[in-house]
Amino acid sequence: MKLLRYGAPGAEKPGILDGDGKIRDLSGIVEDIDAAALSPEGLAKIAAADIGSLPVVDGDPRLGACVGKVGKMICVGLNYSDHAAESGMEVPPEPIIFMKATSAICGPNDDTVVPRGSKKLDYEVELGIVIGKKAKYVSEAEALDYVAGYCVVNDVSEREFQAERSGQWTKGKSCDTFGPTGPWMVTRDEIPNPQELGIWAKVNGEFRQNGNTNTMVYGPAFLVHYLSQFFTLEPGDVIPTGTPPGVGMGFKPEPKYLKAGDVVELGIDGLGAQRQTCVADS
Amino acid sequence: MKLLRYGAPGAEKPGILDGDGKIRDLSGIVEDIDAAALSPEGLAKIAAADIGSLPVVDGDPRLGACVGKVGKMICVGLNYSDHAAESGMEVPPEPIIFMKATSAICGPNDDTVVPRGSKKLDYEVELGIVIGKKAKYVSEAEALDYVAGYCVVNDVSEREFQAERSGQWTKGKSCDTFGPTGPWMVTRDEIPNPQELGIWAKVNGEFRQNGNTNTMVYGPAFLVHYLSQFFTLEPGDVIPTGTPPGVGMGFKPEPKYLKAGDVVELGIDGLGAQRQTCVADS
Repeated sequence: MKLLRYGAPGAEKPGILDGDGKIRDLSGIVEDIDAAALSPEGLAKIAAADIGSLPVVDGDPRLGACVGKVGKMICVGLNYSDHAAESGMEVPPEPIIFMKATSAICGPNDDTVVPRGSKKLDYEVELGIVIGKKAKYVSEAEALDYVAGYCVVNDVSEREFQAERSGQWTKGKSCDTFGPTGPWMVTRDEIPNPQELGIWAKVNGEFRQNGNTNTMVYGPAFLVHYLSQFFTLEPGDVIPTGTPPGVGMGFKPEPKYLKAGDVVELGIDGLGAQRQTCVADS
Repeated sequence: MKLLRYGAPGAEKPGILDGDGKIRDLSGIVEDIDAAALSPEGLAKIAAADIGSLPVVDGDPRLGACVGKVGKMICVGLNYSDHAAESGMEVPPEPIIFMKATSAICGPNDDTVVPRGSKKLDYEVELGIVIGKKAKYVSEAEALDYVAGYCVVNDVSEREFQAERSGQWTKGKSCDTFGPTGPWMVTRDEIPNPQELGIWAKVNGEFRQNGNTNTMVYGPAFLVHYLSQFFTLEPGDVIPTGTPPGVGMGFKPEPKYLKAGDVVELGIDGLGAQRQTCVADS
């Protein structure tokens, strides 16, 4: 199933993509694509519904983030060996993690607002894991049982804020609109191997990232296991799992950062695509 | 006003401390001590209520975190010059910030669960700023207008997870129960100068931290201004502002870390006190 949220920011309704690529209104079945809907019971309720009889959503509505009320967005750093190399850093002996503020989460096609003072705006296409069940101290073998599905996340980053403004990456990862999430969450049953998916990003039509999730260092099962040793993962938490090579920061001799007017497109095989236009802050 | 939340975890009700130190049930006035209640309109509604006529809450109920549905907890690192010194680090040229997972937030007197594998558990008493109004690009002069009030936060930390387990502090700051918040949020009008408050922590009755918020490097007005340059601060966001000297990590010749059975008490003048017992994870 491909679950999504559509409508105006802050007033999104739950929807599902039908076999013809049309959005059907799910509000009669679940309140939102949130913790309750993403739980095994919630997903079973949606799976049992007669999708073809649900109202078709007309036109081409804005899409919101495909998960609502995200509790935490836990990002993994330097999780592709060749991206670590382009960043001039070693693959870490265990996953690097950091938080992105949930206030940064936005729709997959919303504008990316260039923050005031930004000089080094960058993109990172990432496979996002969506948690469906409370996970604490889970083994790697059982870890995927706690996953509701997967989605595309752009881990938008401001490299100067991230690395040159006094320690810790949070500042460069958490600006408003720095977390486009979606277009939809694809349930786990439809993605038998999340580590064998083409993953790409373009800027103004030019391919910048063009990799495969099979070069991830730490895969989804390990990450869910690993993170659950530190804290409880809750339904609706999202884990962007790191980016392949080709981010703007990595280009030689000059990095290729984003500026107002640039158009970023990104996607993952089977999970859909996003498209953002960079706009100056008002 | 001293606003709080009482009752079982996940089912807390809003309350207010009356002049006699009794808890009065606020559920007839607001749903929760959350974004809506913390807004200027919400606080005005509570201020207009006849507190003496509200039901007294009997007995000695558990207190929850004094703010419900926290959107983000943005922590400030090394914000007391003498704490930076004891940590062997320089005062940063601008604030260091990091996120604590909101799943770590708990009641002020809840047990602190020692995570599996923990060897370097530590405490940090901190003044927490509670946001009451959306803040983006606000000046330092107007910053306090966006503050609903202040509370005590224990920024519980696992130093090995924080600093010796591959980059970024999140892992050592976000374990379950690592964010005791409360006992209550005191509205801003009752704290004319948040940078002139005694702030202390004891372990098993022994004073470990005994400072004053007047040695903070970056004060609340600057921090709200500063953070709002990176992202929108939203009502219900909490900003723990760093800790004075005396954390376990800083003791010579041997650090004094916490273990199961230890009792941590901490408080700030005018904002009340917390008490946690450290317990082994089950």
